[in-house]
Amino acid sequence: MDTRSEYDLLGTLDVPAQAYYGIQTLRASQNFKITGVPIGHFPELIKALAMVKAAAARTNQEFGLLDDTKTDAIVYACQDLINGQYHDQFIVDVIQGGAGTSTNMNANEVIANIGLSKLGFGLGDYQHLHPNDHVNKSQSTNDAYPTAARLGIQFAADNFLPALAQLKEALEAKGQMFASVLKMGRTQLQDAVPMTLGQEFNAFATTLGEDIDRIQDACALLCEVNLGGTAIGTGINTPEGYSQKAIEKLAIISKKPLTPASNLVEATSDMGAFVFFSGILKRLAIKLSKMSNDLRLLSSGPRTGLGEIKLPEMQPGSSIMPGKVNPVIPEAMNQTAYQVIASDLAVTLAAEAGQLQLNAMEPMIIYNVLNSLKMLREACDMLNQKCIQGIQANEATCLAHVENSIGIITALVPHIGYSNASRIAREALLTGATVKSLILLEGLLTEDQLNELLKPEKMIAPTKLSS
Amino acid sequence: MDTRSEYDLLGTLDVPAQAYYGIQTLRASQNFKITGVPIGHFPELIKALAMVKAAAARTNQEFGLLDDTKTDAIVYACQDLINGQYHDQFIVDVIQGGAGTSTNMNANEVIANIGLSKLGFGLGDYQHLHPNDHVNKSQSTNDAYPTAARLGIQFAADNFLPALAQLKEALEAKGQMFASVLKMGRTQLQDAVPMTLGQEFNAFATTLGEDIDRIQDACALLCEVNLGGTAIGTGINTPEGYSQKAIEKLAIISKKPLTPASNLVEATSDMGAFVFFSGILKRLAIKLSKMSNDLRLLSSGPRTGLGEIKLPEMQPGSSIMPGKVNPVIPEAMNQTAYQVIASDLAVTLAAEAGQLQLNAMEPMIIYNVLNSLKMLREACDMLNQKCIQGIQANEATCLAHVENSIGIITALVPHIGYSNASRIAREALLTGATVKSLILLEGLLTEDQLNELLKPEKMIAPTKLSS
Amino acid sequence: MDTRSEYDLLGTLDVPAQAYYGIQTLRASQNFKITGVPIGHFPELIKALAMVKAAAARTNQEFGLLDDTKTDAIVYACQDLINGQYHDQFIVDVIQGGAGTSTNMNANEVIANIGLSKLGFGLGDYQHLHPNDHVNKSQSTNDAYPTAARLGIQFAADNFLPALAQLKEALEAKGQMFASVLKMGRTQLQDAVPMTLGQEFNAFATTLGEDIDRIQDACALLCEVNLGGTAIGTGINTPEGYSQKAIEKLAIISKKPLTPASNLVEATSDMGAFVFFSGILKRLAIKLSKMSNDLRLLSSGPRTGLGEIKLPEMQPGSSIMPGKVNPVIPEAMNQTAYQVIASDLAVTLAAEAGQLQLNAMEPMIIYNVLNSLKMLREACDMLNQKCIQGIQANEATCLAHVENSIGIITALVPHIGYSNASRIAREALLTGATVKSLILLEGLLTEDQLNELLKPEKMIAPTKLSS
Amino acid sequence: MDTRSEYDLLGTLDVPAQAYYGIQTLRASQNFKITGVPIGHFPELIKALAMVKAAAARTNQEFGLLDDTKTDAIVYACQDLINGQYHDQFIVDVIQGGAGTSTNMNANEVIANIGLSKLGFGLGDYQHLHPNDHVNKSQSTNDAYPTAARLGIQFAADNFLPALAQLKEALEAKGQMFASVLKMGRTQLQDAVPMTLGQEFNAFATTLGEDIDRIQDACALLCEVNLGGTAIGTGINTPEGYSQKAIEKLAIISKKPLTPASNLVEATSDMGAFVFFSGILKRLAIKLSKMSNDLRLLSSGPRTGLGEIKLPEMQPGSSIMPGKVNPVIPEAMNQTAYQVIASDLAVTLAAEAGQLQLNAMEPMIIYNVLNSLKMLREACDMLNQKCIQGIQANEATCLAHVENSIGIITALVPHIGYSNASRIAREALLTGATVKSLILLEGLLTEDQLNELLKPEKMIAPTKLSS
Repeated sequence: MDTRSEYDLLGTLDVPAQAYYGIQTLRASQNFKITGVPIGHFPELIKALAMVKAAAARTNQEFGLLDDTKTDAIVYACQDLINGQYHDQFIVDVIQGGAGTSTNMNANEVIANIGLSKLGFGLGDYQHLHPNDHVNKSQSTNDAYPTAARLGIQFAADNFLPALAQLKEALEAKGQMFASVLKMGRTQLQDAVPMTLGQEFNAFATTLGEDIDRIQDACALLCEVNLGGTAIGTGINTPEGYSQKAIEKLAIISKKPLTPASNLVEATSDMGAFVFFSGILKRLAIKLSKMSNDLRLLSSGPRTGLGEIKLPEMQPGSSIMPGKVNPVIPEAMNQTAYQVIASDLAVTLAAEAGQLQLNAMEPMIIYNVLNSLKMLREACDMLNQKCIQGIQANEATCLAHVENSIGIITALVPHIGYSNASRIAREALLTGATVKSLILLEGLLTEDQLNELLKPEKMIAPTKLSS
Repeated sequence: MDTRSEYDLLGTLDVPAQAYYGIQTLRASQNFKITGVPIGHFPELIKALAMVKAAAARTNQEFGLLDDTKTDAIVYACQDLINGQYHDQFIVDVIQGGAGTSTNMNANEVIANIGLSKLGFGLGDYQHLHPNDHVNKSQSTNDAYPTAARLGIQFAADNFLPALAQLKEALEAKGQMFASVLKMGRTQLQDAVPMTLGQEFNAFATTLGEDIDRIQDACALLCEVNLGGTAIGTGINTPEGYSQKAIEKLAIISKKPLTPASNLVEATSDMGAFVFFSGILKRLAIKLSKMSNDLRLLSSGPRTGLGEIKLPEMQPGSSIMPGKVNPVIPEAMNQTAYQVIASDLAVTLAAEAGQLQLNAMEPMIIYNVLNSLKMLREACDMLNQKCIQGIQANEATCLAHVENSIGIITALVPHIGYSNASRIAREALLTGATVKSLILLEGLLTEDQLNELLKPEKMIAPTKLSS
Repeated sequence: MDTRSEYDLLGTLDVPAQAYYGIQTLRASQNFKITGVPIGHFPELIKALAMVKAAAARTNQEFGLLDDTKTDAIVYACQDLINGQYHDQFIVDVIQGGAGTSTNMNANEVIANIGLSKLGFGLGDYQHLHPNDHVNKSQSTNDAYPTAARLGIQFAADNFLPALAQLKEALEAKGQMFASVLKMGRTQLQDAVPMTLGQEFNAFATTLGEDIDRIQDACALLCEVNLGGTAIGTGINTPEGYSQKAIEKLAIISKKPLTPASNLVEATSDMGAFVFFSGILKRLAIKLSKMSNDLRLLSSGPRTGLGEIKLPEMQPGSSIMPGKVNPVIPEAMNQTAYQVIASDLAVTLAAEAGQLQLNAMEPMIIYNVLNSLKMLREACDMLNQKCIQGIQANEATCLAHVENSIGIITALVPHIGYSNASRIAREALLTGATVKSLILLEGLLTEDQLNELLKPEKMIAPTKLSS
Repeated sequence: MDTRSEYDLLGTLDVPAQAYYGIQTLRASQNFKITGVPIGHFPELIKALAMVKAAAARTNQEFGLLDDTKTDAIVYACQDLINGQYHDQFIVDVIQGGAGTSTNMNANEVIANIGLSKLGFGLGDYQHLHPNDHVNKSQSTNDAYPTAARLGIQFAADNFLPALAQLKEALEAKGQMFASVLKMGRTQLQDAVPMTLGQEFNAFATTLGEDIDRIQDACALLCEVNLGGTAIGTGINTPEGYSQKAIEKLAIISKKPLTPASNLVEATSDMGAFVFFSGILKRLAIKLSKMSNDLRLLSSGPRTGLGEIKLPEMQPGSSIMPGKVNPVIPEAMNQTAYQVIASDLAVTLAAEAGQLQLNAMEPMIIYNVLNSLKMLREACDMLNQKCIQGIQANEATCLAHVENSIGIITALVPHIGYSNASRIAREALLTGATVKSLILLEGLLTEDQLNELLKPEKMIAPTKLSS
């Protein structure tokens, strides 16, 4: 393989001649091989890093710290990354020591080399455009990297939220479609009182809708960035005013309402915004898992389960049992949810491990948040398209459950009293008779009265007041 | 023991004659003995339950469902509970089956019996004031209990937040006290660049301040309640308009800006607001633990550690090592934080276990949130009063660390170049010489220049621009 | 209140005159108030501490380091604690800083004062029997405390295992009782193939039985103790041979096969045995939760659920729905299980937080393990006595599920072929017809053949080979 | 793209003409895209699946259920997989619904098609060798898949354990190398008593050695398999004796001491062995993380930290701070450990989610265990080769810490008394004087006595008895 020689603090190494990354990236790729997943797997992060570098370059230019030629070379190189080019050059493993230094240097080196190409120089000819002296100017990993991460997570959320919104809409559509399907509600898996299947699906839609709001709130917290804080938040080696200006430029480039953290020392080591964001994803995962559990319960059967809904059939369910079809899509969603909940623990552990002026575990925090967003996006699309949209109601079963149930007696309590109701409920349970038949038998209500009181629209809402 | 006989759906039992609770509470207390912690351990929950019952009674009265005598008896009984009386009558274990029915019935029974006393009737003489028919009127456990829980957690937060705010203020006071104590910042436990000890303590204060805001946000989410949804959120057996009115009254009584949930079916089974709240407490716990770790690191020694601060001595540290004193207070805070993080997992597991129209695990969710708040309140007071307020700086050690450090060379990079700086840093490391002496030796800067560039105020902030 | 004055390294304090604890316990009780749960809440730990102190005293006596009078006073005092006396004197909170020093000193002080009483001296008259110089002789908290914890957890396990074994036996009894109740097995909540209800309960019994073995294995790991390692495992200030002899004596007193850890330095800081033990409790919790989920599923109904079994009715299930009874006992077991799983995370976090020669978080590790054992003991007794023993089969429902199911067709595959079977399964699903009727209709098998092939004993086991 | 048409229960699909997988694999790959990681990523699992299929074929042959030609074709196809061929044909995502059916069918289809090639038939010409009828004969996913998983995890453990053992040996080598480097031990980050750096590294080695044993124990539990239980453990559609024979053959092929589970119904749904295994990996992760924390603490500095050891320099540590080098390797190990701990939570959640006769979440349980083993193998190699082997002691610093410390006074307690020792310790702390100088000043011991008592070999072990 053709190589070029590069050197750093620790000596020289042979870098592949055509590589846009350089010696520090190469070292990192040799040091860290734990997951096999490179940072380039998350394009939103690469894009965000490029925006940070572009904003820094323009700010340095404005302060007279970087000449126009170099600035332009950096900015155009960043633009290529923003456009999705060269992402295969981001080879460092997502789990890495060094608090993100390797990721930051991977970006610095790739940008320098793209810039050098644009300027007509050879790869590695850093005297004309240097990863540290120019691309990283007025920055430290400790401000550039978390700023990029906060931005990249927002981009990933932008990609995820439409999938979540479409899932919500699909649930609402089912809510409407099933608006008149009467069924029994269940509390603690025991028959409760009637409701509609539409109400059940609308509740799913509502609960996911809340988390769209929560994720947007969480993105707002990520808008507070520490760019300009450099090594530990004191801003050493930046000109006064640099932080404010660089963040303004980054806000324009990224179209996100970024603001400087009120305390840059705090912001350098604090992982609170990531913890918060991950916590919201955990909350969503809990909801998605609960909903998937419900879908599996409601579709259980076909003969010995609840059988109130029918999920679309996606694949044969058994190599030994003819005709068996399983709820594979909600099952996959459950597992995704568990993985997201587990990732939140990874984030928790890493966040607690910060020490003094930095958290060295930041790379895995960022990886876990980005990975959860990616998995959730795939899983929400899957659940929406391969399950929710094709769900059918077993209306007859739903209705039979209501008519056969004891729970409808609740609606009669205001008319026959709690004590009569309890006695009849018990008798129905022991004899297998229906509530209706027992009440008629005892003459507590007439058939007309019963039919009136047990009208679906009466049982699934508060009692209209006669005015 | 003197007893009175009571009966319910399952038969009769002998209840202690003087007990304000009744048969269902007694059953529950016999069924559940898992933690040994009674719900009365959390006065905020009892207070909130009483407010819910009072608001429901007044609303029932307004709808003509409850006469004035009974209403007043209920409301006055609730007032006693709000005032802190009779809490020893709340004997059901915090971990209980039944989705809170036992807690709700414990409240219904105690309120009925206090009311009966006030009306001049005997305990258990429920024909005059019935736990179910009157106290629980227009309610189900499934709306009354979670509404009370959402309120009770806010009350507990009201009790906790001042402790957190005082801790923050104590840290700010130290930030001010140590504003001119120069020390080395450390990233990844390696010497970085200078800062002040005041900046370090201010960062602690800032990070806690953010969580005061977050907890208040989380309380706002708890203001959305499902009172009036009854069994499954359809509002069965309530008059139309009941929910809105009952919540209005509860808002007045509780002085909290409560609003009805937009979807009562969703709100009945959804644990999202508790998950959110618990997640914020977890975030705070992570921060408190990280801060405690830092305090222990910074005070490590006395001779072989970092030794930059001195914690107040709270107790002898060893039975075998004379003179040893340990950082026992931050250690206890760490453990509290771990317990809170673990409680968040308990909440997560329980929230995911909801099924269909209800979450049967709600009691342990509520217990864990309340218990975390209680532990955090104690621990924040402890950390504030027994540790932070008495911390002293070892100024000489802090300064020696800076003067002896290699990291200060970062401040010289703009003047001697990165390459010279790296070379001298390396030489300092290998020879043990100071950076200053090597630079003077090489004549790269004069002593005057050095003294100017290494002035504390220059190293701990961005570079002032000469205009 | 009457007091006596005591002093330590940090000064003097007034101790209640009648207290058997002393100044260091008092300091700790003032410093730590986080949970409100005192260590005396766990009698097994107090008993174990007393055994350690007695073994140490006898060993010191043998080495000539403690005179006979003092030794006997200590040993007799320890005997009182082993007998359950004076446990109210153990007032330190279970969450405490100091790596257990406060618990160890609480024991040292109480033993010294009981001993002084026995010797005829006043409480606090330590010149005759000193908490540190005599009771704690040749010990450090860092060896005495974890040794006691390892022992105490074994005692708690001894108390728990019978409850678990009885639960297993109750499940086996049900397995036998339901041996001929034919029902449908379900995989992924979808109808699978027939089995007996007895097989289902036997599976529960088997899975718990395995964990009885695992807990006993875990106790074996706890038998490796570090007594004699003193401060950091080097055994400083003990005579050579002390560790071996003290552990021998402790093994005799405790009737546990204790052995010295092979590396006392490692053993001083390593929490591995606690992590292992807690992990096993977590495993058991997972199983108990899964089983409780199954019990709730199988008993769902009464009309709109699976309804295959009936749980004993323990309390009314609703204040609004007449006749409703809920599976409150399994629900409480689920919550206990979640709490135990959460405690395992607390143990994990604390174990990871060990630093260098000690783990300062040991008190909460020990608390969580003991608390989990305590909760599990209560919950297993509850589940056994208030649920399992009273479970009844709904045989008719179980049988109807089989006869109505499509899944029985699996048993016919070897006779009519997979392809015929699939086609008929599908037709049955779409038309609602039974498998039997369709096969007869098509003449694929005769009624006699069908009856033979669908005999319960044929469908629930491998095919007997005709010889 | 060239395709062939295949059909199943749900219809027909075009499969790539050259694919060895078939229609069900294709469906699954379209349904599940959540992680992007295919099961072929874990060669040990593919190898194990092949062994199961080979053992089943030979057993079917023996029972006369499969002819010799088909049997041989299957077995030779399996051998190719065992040899590592065709793994790129295993394209189903590691997270999948269906309880492993897709993975099982992926194996069945690939084996059928390899077999067809060997027999001279075209891909997809299943009449001659059918994925279900022949390759899957006498099996269900529910026994074949978990059996393969139990085996595959053992193979992965076989690959991991040497890495762990080598890490342990490297630590032992350092233990020996540093056997005479005297240093201060620290408890709770406070100076304790002297030890050697060798003792510290030996403790690391010991603690990892214990986990090699634990992992081997855990592998033993995985040897109990449920092959032959088919759908739900009743063994439906297998000939009597099949289970025993198939497992015997699999034991021979795999060279693992496999045995049939005592209760196949229990074994079908129980995830206990995976939970146990994962719990052990979590325990190891805790230890590795604690050790990495210690390495980072001990190497902190270079000027303002503990500075007792020097880690090999692996990459430049900062883009802004000249000469900075960070402990990147232990940091990466910490993050790996957190990821493993999080995976254990994923396993926990999934295991608890089992229902009735099966656990549908098995795929992600297996994925998490295999992934943890893979990450740990990489990380242990990394820590060993890039960190431990190159660690150097800063002997002078270590010794200075001892000589300067107050903690050495502990060794003098038996000679000057606890009370004198405490007083002098305090004076040393306040004045900054050394313990030695103060004792000489007071004349408590002579210089000769002091030198004798403070000999390293005396302070780091129990006191030799003068006989």
